Amino acid sequence: MPKIVRFYEFGDADVLKLEEQSLSDPKEGEVRLKVEAIGLNRAEVMFRAGKYLELPEKFPSTLGYEASGTIDAIGSGVTGFQIGDRVSTIPAFSMRKYGVYGESAIVPAIAVAHYPENLSPQEATAIWMQYMTPYGALVEYGQVKAGDFVLITAASSSVGYSAIQIAKAAGAIAIATTRGSSKKQMLLDKGADYVIVTNEEDLVSRVMEITKGKGVNLIFDAVAGAFLETLANAAAPGATIFVYGILSPDGVTPFPLFPALQKGLKVQGYTLFEITSNPVKLEHAKQYIYNGLESGKLVPIIDRNFTLNQIVEAHRYMESNQQNGKIIVTVP
Amino acid sequence: MPKIVRFYEFGDADVLKLEEQSLSDPKEGEVRLKVEAIGLNRAEVMFRAGKYLELPEKFPSTLGYEASGTIDAIGSGVTGFQIGDRVSTIPAFSMRKYGVYGESAIVPAIAVAHYPENLSPQEATAIWMQYMTPYGALVEYGQVKAGDFVLITAASSSVGYSAIQIAKAAGAIAIATTRGSSKKQMLLDKGADYVIVTNEEDLVSRVMEITKGKGVNLIFDAVAGAFLETLANAAAPGATIFVYGILSPDGVTPFPLFPALQKGLKVQGYTLFEITSNPVKLEHAKQYIYNGLESGKLVPIIDRNFTLNQIVEAHRYMESNQQNGKIIVTVP
Repeated sequence: MPKIVRFYEFGDADVLKLEEQSLSDPKEGEVRLKVEAIGLNRAEVMFRAGKYLELPEKFPSTLGYEASGTIDAIGSGVTGFQIGDRVSTIPAFSMRKYGVYGESAIVPAIAVAHYPENLSPQEATAIWMQYMTPYGALVEYGQVKAGDFVLITAASSSVGYSAIQIAKAAGAIAIATTRGSSKKQMLLDKGADYVIVTNEEDLVSRVMEITKGKGVNLIFDAVAGAFLETLANAAAPGATIFVYGILSPDGVTPFPLFPALQKGLKVQGYTLFEITSNPVKLEHAKQYIYNGLESGKLVPIIDRNFTLNQIVEAHRYMESNQQNGKIIVTVP
Repeated sequence: MPKIVRFYEFGDADVLKLEEQSLSDPKEGEVRLKVEAIGLNRAEVMFRAGKYLELPEKFPSTLGYEASGTIDAIGSGVTGFQIGDRVSTIPAFSMRKYGVYGESAIVPAIAVAHYPENLSPQEATAIWMQYMTPYGALVEYGQVKAGDFVLITAASSSVGYSAIQIAKAAGAIAIATTRGSSKKQMLLDKGADYVIVTNEEDLVSRVMEITKGKGVNLIFDAVAGAFLETLANAAAPGATIFVYGILSPDGVTPFPLFPALQKGLKVQGYTLFEITSNPVKLEHAKQYIYNGLESGKLVPIIDRNFTLNQIVEAHRYMESNQQNGKIIVTVP
């Protein structure tokens, strides 16, 4: 029987349990994967802690958005896939209904895609969430273009690195922020034009120095909280601040009213589900990512590899904020 | 010598002083008006109190954005105007440099426009600020269209009534909010499809009832503060909330993080200066307003008329929030 990760209560990483579960069959519109690798996301950490945008339907709950594997069963009404196809999952479903942490996973066929042959199963779990998230904000909505200044906060996450690559692919200038100096060199090595270490430097004056007083055109923010006001002060007139995460421990995120009125700023709440729930936008995003992977402008950055029975340790590692890039679990 | 309104310190309406000042000549690019009427705006109340987006350059300071009158002097380099032309002013300048409260006013020629002949001088001071403000948000940025649900807060102001007219002109459904029930009937009479009395009714459930659970597509908000969270809960997925004023006494405006992420909401700080400082957008706005006034879709609503020596009383009246539409001062 396949081993599956489930949790029976909200809590820290310890609540994750690896348990055997009998193999079930995919229903209409679903496929089943024999999982080879799982990509970890902050979303799952928050879901497990009861702090995500949605709560489990019931306990015990499965979890997980991204896995790669081979299709070993196909439900009725599914076209375009065959038994044995190597695919990875796109976060185009709710964790209330599906979860991919385990040796076997059932997901909707619309949330599955073939991945480029030159990628390993591990790399294939590090392309959809991490590229689609900044793609939607920066390309689909923000229409990033050559010469734009793009500020990327918490830039050492897999999504952060992907945002740097996407900004650079458009010819924009990528300014990355990170709290401590330990990740600065890696961010520069992996493409950031500038890195601001927020524990040591004044973000607004550094941005104004870099942009010659203009401010940044697009901000891609995973932090929220009181930091939003600082970001607004670093923004150019007419800039958009995309808020896609809530890493800040602050309970409240004050809207930066005065800079917003004075500079006509937009603060846009954003999740990749706006892309994955729209078939046209999803198709554009997939093509963009395929093209970027093929041209070499998008290169997944893998941080560290765990095994499935180390899932608790892997979650703890994500919460330690030591990572640079994607955290992977190889199965079994 | 013409009488001019000035203030020597920040404070309540009493700080406004009507004083004689020698007539000065317009400089390059400027024109001088013999003022016939002045339109009052909340911006001047805030400017006088030291709570506006900008502070006076020095004391004593003049104030005022909107006046109508005849041109009685023209600076060098000005084309398109002649002595005797009847014009009104567009808020395309800073009150740090210009103010129109008085019997005579000098303003930049780019901030002056001929007004339709069928309007009175009083009505001519009630067209630019009040229509350009919602025009920029709802038409230029929001691209309001037939069938959209548009929520307009503090709807009994001149800008609020104008927003209702602009929403209706596009074929949208205008939902107005007002705190007490005293203005409800007037708002319905003047075009609002629905009025929500926020002191008596639950805004979110009323909106969901009206929109059959969809929420509103565009929100045009003068209030900010804690009310923003309520507005976000009444918004449809993908909606934009334009915040153009700060009527709320709340010191902080919490950004509605969870609804914004869940529904992909945009909160956009907005002032009409984004339109008036851009020659192309300004020209589009003027044409839109001319056309609307001509077709009868835009009809200025005048609330009450004061004389220039009642300027203190006129400001007090604005702050009392009793008005329905534009407050005017006739000169002399």
